[in-house]
Amino acid sequence: MTTQTRFRVRYAETDQMGIVHHSNYYVWMEMGRSDYCRATGVRYSDMEQGDGVYLAVAKSECRYVFPAHYDEELIVETEISKAHTRLVEFTYRILRVEDGRLLAEGHTTHVFCDREMQRRKLPEKYWALFGIESAPVR
Amino acid sequence: MTTQTRFRVRYAETDQMGIVHHSNYYVWMEMGRSDYCRATGVRYSDMEQGDGVYLAVAKSECRYVFPAHYDEELIVETEISKAHTRLVEFTYRILRVEDGRLLAEGHTTHVFCDREMQRRKLPEKYWALFGIESAPVR
Amino acid sequence: MTTQTRFRVRYAETDQMGIVHHSNYYVWMEMGRSDYCRATGVRYSDMEQGDGVYLAVAKSECRYVFPAHYDEELIVETEISKAHTRLVEFTYRILRVEDGRLLAEGHTTHVFCDREMQRRKLPEKYWALFGIESAPVR
Amino acid sequence: MTTQTRFRVRYAETDQMGIVHHSNYYVWMEMGRSDYCRATGVRYSDMEQGDGVYLAVAKSECRYVFPAHYDEELIVETEISKAHTRLVEFTYRILRVEDGRLLAEGHTTHVFCDREMQRRKLPEKYWALFGIESAPVR
Repeated sequence: MTTQTRFRVRYAETDQMGIVHHSNYYVWMEMGRSDYCRATGVRYSDMEQGDGVYLAVAKSECRYVFPAHYDEELIVETEISKAHTRLVEFTYRILRVEDGRLLAEGHTTHVFCDREMQRRKLPEKYWALFGIESAPVR
Repeated sequence: MTTQTRFRVRYAETDQMGIVHHSNYYVWMEMGRSDYCRATGVRYSDMEQGDGVYLAVAKSECRYVFPAHYDEELIVETEISKAHTRLVEFTYRILRVEDGRLLAEGHTTHVFCDREMQRRKLPEKYWALFGIESAPVR
Repeated sequence: MTTQTRFRVRYAETDQMGIVHHSNYYVWMEMGRSDYCRATGVRYSDMEQGDGVYLAVAKSECRYVFPAHYDEELIVETEISKAHTRLVEFTYRILRVEDGRLLAEGHTTHVFCDREMQRRKLPEKYWALFGIESAPVR
Repeated sequence: MTTQTRFRVRYAETDQMGIVHHSNYYVWMEMGRSDYCRATGVRYSDMEQGDGVYLAVAKSECRYVFPAHYDEELIVETEISKAHTRLVEFTYRILRVEDGRLLAEGHTTHVFCDREMQRRKLPEKYWALFGIESAPVR
């Protein structure tokens, strides 16, 4: 499954180079992640509040291909590239709506944690959300 | 009492106008507020975690006199301009270190809240911090 | 004229109080301003690049009525409350989509500047955009 | 050469997980980069304005080891891990001052660009700054 999140670049996201500051791409990936969860029928806020499941970021990376500018319409394409009961990795592509040009590609790796930021196993009710198959029957 | 917080403008704080984006001045005022509390011997994080006292922002305003630029050294001068057991108002002046030029002036008004963001009275142990005098004896 | 900008609260916009950090409301107002200009047929980026007209922020203020939370859908309502050839003031209301609850109200005052951040008069071609009537004939 | 940049975590940098939002680490690395340049005697703002040399970010990555919290004092250690006339890579370590604990490690890769964001060769006067040796004589 791939989800698409469409938005417009904010003025505050630019810097004096006249392009979007590179740290904002991680905020956009997070919007993509949030929409991905919603598309599967789970609100991330419910996971946090209802079940105390937090997705702590363990690693993030981004390759910047072409700069984004103020007021451009962009799309984040989000998918899960790896998942098991301890960890999930999301992959993102950021595209310009006008011509479909690829602006950036990124990944984030998350470990499941509880409210005290201790690692925990993902409760089984969320396995389907992340595409984790049930354990093989022996 | 007036406290001074010294820092350097970050690249990420600029926008494509080539100057600091106006929203960042509020983050700088918050740094001033944090240092003001520390100077009186109270860490704001202890107020939150230890006593469940939160300073919810009820109003903020800023007048921008002259733009700040990347890499400039600035000072936030912070003082309390009003305080009683329900509310505190901080006043700030943001100055450029190089020549003392005034860049901005601002105010923030805070109401004391509990963990559920409900208004509460400030516990008496914190009155001195905010310069609140004890109630008059009748 | 009033324009409406609809968006969803980002996770990165929250702070450890569990609500949106107050500085982000100014970024939202800016989104409203940007959409207001677009609705009148002028892209703000064209004003900057084509004609060297910048809207430098001279004053900003916000009154916070009720906190915004992660993932909530919000609307910024934007209108011009004052305008002449040197200055424009925008007024904003930030509302929660779910129940129409008012979360915040704000104002920003801008002076027209050139590329060197010197004050200038607004070119006549933009008067209509800001609702500035032509000078009275004598 | 390794430079150290010391700073305190801002309240606005936290999110509702109660820890620093992961995008801010990239802003901190940028502070480290800025200080690294200054330590070698070159202000990055002079490179941009004086010579039209921009360090466009081509890649960024961060591994998060342990969360940072509001009000903690941190250090960014910055060094150059690779450099030639077209590209420079910085490596960073983010440490907690109190106990020296490693919180994060990251890298950023930059290509030298001109004002129009076109790739260019780094002018020879800046080679020493990035530790680029002069071309071998044949």
